[in-house]
Amino acid sequence: METIGRNEIFSQAKEWIFEAGQYIRSKMYKEHQISTKSNPNDLVTELDRDTEIMLTNNIRKTYPNHLIISEEGYGDKLSRLDGTVWIIDPIDGTMNFVHQKQNFAISIGIYHNQIGEIGLIYDVIGNVLYSAKRGEGAFKNDQPLKQLDKDVSLDKAIIAMNHFWLCENHLVCEQTMQKFVRNIRGTRTYGSAALEFAYVAEGILDGYLALRLSPWDIAAGIVIVNEVGGVTTTIDGEPLNMLTKNPILTCNPAIQKEIIDYIKKGRKVT
Amino acid sequence: METIGRNEIFSQAKEWIFEAGQYIRSKMYKEHQISTKSNPNDLVTELDRDTEIMLTNNIRKTYPNHLIISEEGYGDKLSRLDGTVWIIDPIDGTMNFVHQKQNFAISIGIYHNQIGEIGLIYDVIGNVLYSAKRGEGAFKNDQPLKQLDKDVSLDKAIIAMNHFWLCENHLVCEQTMQKFVRNIRGTRTYGSAALEFAYVAEGILDGYLALRLSPWDIAAGIVIVNEVGGVTTTIDGEPLNMLTKNPILTCNPAIQKEIIDYIKKGRKVT
Repeated sequence: METIGRNEIFSQAKEWIFEAGQYIRSKMYKEHQISTKSNPNDLVTELDRDTEIMLTNNIRKTYPNHLIISEEGYGDKLSRLDGTVWIIDPIDGTMNFVHQKQNFAISIGIYHNQIGEIGLIYDVIGNVLYSAKRGEGAFKNDQPLKQLDKDVSLDKAIIAMNHFWLCENHLVCEQTMQKFVRNIRGTRTYGSAALEFAYVAEGILDGYLALRLSPWDIAAGIVIVNEVGGVTTTIDGEPLNMLTKNPILTCNPAIQKEIIDYIKKGRKVT
Repeated sequence: METIGRNEIFSQAKEWIFEAGQYIRSKMYKEHQISTKSNPNDLVTELDRDTEIMLTNNIRKTYPNHLIISEEGYGDKLSRLDGTVWIIDPIDGTMNFVHQKQNFAISIGIYHNQIGEIGLIYDVIGNVLYSAKRGEGAFKNDQPLKQLDKDVSLDKAIIAMNHFWLCENHLVCEQTMQKFVRNIRGTRTYGSAALEFAYVAEGILDGYLALRLSPWDIAAGIVIVNEVGGVTTTIDGEPLNMLTKNPILTCNPAIQKEIIDYIKKGRKVT
């Protein structure tokens, strides 16, 4: 992607994400209807859909050649990640949105020929924008984020993960993960994948493990984490397929091998 | 405790907690020495001690007849909770303080003849004060907190708990807790007991389960949670002994019995 074109797209995306945030804030204290997806833990609000429609309409009008992958179904059905693709989650952390009215984010990753070029994660209530362009560093609002501290070991690491890692699951023997939890400094669970990526980039988490995330949960985060020297792969250390769901590890590279080796010990054959 | 005296003590405590917060903010970006307590997860900084000395000096000077229970050892050794007792944690969430430079709090609970009269929890970086006087409601800064929604069931609840509940532990069979996790809406882990109490009071968490907390972790939170109709007991539903460590459940009363019944199923005999 050429720099001039990329800068324009970045500015445009930034404008739209702020607009969408303002829209969400203005509407969110009003009554919103809640419907359930496949299970009661997977809430989605009308606002989620409205925001996605707003963003996808903007993109299609301004960049008719660009493609869109998005959570709520207003994007395109893609079998390849060629051209310029916007990967969007209008409200990441829906449960936080519904229960907490905070701690959720709009996530926009923009990829060009499979390479993550732009990442934007907007904490709507905190009014904090995490952003990055490939090769130009990452920012928290206007402040550049520092490169991740290389002097981190697993016993000093704080890792975000949900509690299902410690329940019987299809990926990793839970006893292995229980041992893992006892061998790191601490765990956190915030309930928004996009924000958990942002916190890894900020260095307030050393890693984030997720059992199963969709492209829109991670597209922006990958770009932002990359820019501070972080790494994102499957939990086996393999490259991600950005068209499917993946079990994810994003972390400080200083602890990546140790975490992957840990998981390997209890990895179930799928 | 008489109302006039209590109002004066409340104002004084509020002034001191803001002063202490300002002191912490001014110092925290400077290098701070870190020592370890009994294990590497239990960090404590010099700032923790300095803040406690600052608070205890203020109390002893202004209220020489009051007693103090505090984390870092500058308080009194009490065998009863008679008279007016300040129960203080200068920095609750030390790991967050050290790793995140945010998400920690100063906690001050003031009890009179065993009754919690005043609670103050100050999120130092967020600059948010949660406060309450017994019988006069709870506040987030100057905004009154609403009474907890009675229309909550366990399957719709978000519960804060750390990941050790799902590892082998001395209190509850971990399989029971794994089942518990699968039957609630979601879990969160924030790493500050005081803030987790405050979030229960705010209604952004429906409950908080902790394996073992000291009086200074919970003294302020109990008062604040009480004022919005929340309840705090041991995990067996028993009254708390405020002079020892306790396994704690603080929650919306609508789900208290269900949680206690769950725990009972896997409760180990101690």
